Amino acid sequence: MPKVKQVNHVAIVVEDMDKALSFWRDALGIELHGLRDVPAEKSQVAFLPLPGSEVELVQPTTEDSGIAKYLAKRGPGMHHLCLEVDDIAGMLSHLKSKGVRLINDEPRTTADGKKYAFIHPESTSGVLVELYQIS
Amino acid sequence: MPKVKQVNHVAIVVEDMDKALSFWRDALGIELHGLRDVPAEKSQVAFLPLPGSEVELVQPTTEDSGIAKYLAKRGPGMHHLCLEVDDIAGMLSHLKSKGVRLINDEPRTTADGKKYAFIHPESTSGVLVELYQIS
Repeated sequence: MPKVKQVNHVAIVVEDMDKALSFWRDALGIELHGLRDVPAEKSQVAFLPLPGSEVELVQPTTEDSGIAKYLAKRGPGMHHLCLEVDDIAGMLSHLKSKGVRLINDEPRTTADGKKYAFIHPESTSGVLVELYQIS
Repeated sequence: MPKVKQVNHVAIVVEDMDKALSFWRDALGIELHGLRDVPAEKSQVAFLPLPGSEVELVQPTTEDSGIAKYLAKRGPGMHHLCLEVDDIAGMLSHLKSKGVRLINDEPRTTADGKKYAFIHPESTSGVLVELYQIS
């Protein structure tokens, strides 16, 4: 049986990265470990790791992406919850067999080789859940 | 300088606990470590710990609580992010000195002795942030 290992990250969609960093980095004191453009997601992402999991701040860089539309509709706030699993392909088949609605039926691969897939909020009580398999 | 230690939990507000558990416990396979009425929060809470942090499912048990109103307005989904800190009183003074808007100026105490306080989403890019000091 495929298994959820831990929370990998919580992604927060922000309107203004500088303002967001003034809270999350400067006021709370969480160290910023990188601020990168992620063209595949039409976003700029700030990575603020904590032991065990990470806070990610995501600012859309275009107006036509899914995350830009989410921001326009719902405002800034928590966007998705990413869970690390040990076997993403197995977990996706298992979830499918349980009738869970998936956004990605098959794992996709990030630029740095991590496998990921999203589960539809309809099946999760309103949370956009991302699954990650790191190794 | 007070410090954020880790993500303690992510709280998800749900309309229907059984339906929520059918995904989070039964489909994802995260073990349920308790399902408790929390009268102070007018909620029933399901605790699903993972190594390092926890998923909490929260179903309002009355219609007049803050969380019930949140559910009515925004629908189910992520409600707050809880960060464990080493010195909550110190962190609250520090945040105040930085101009961060707090919901609780002073730490409150849970029934089981944990100190907690909430930060207003206005200062955090839209996230209701809870701080916890466990020991």
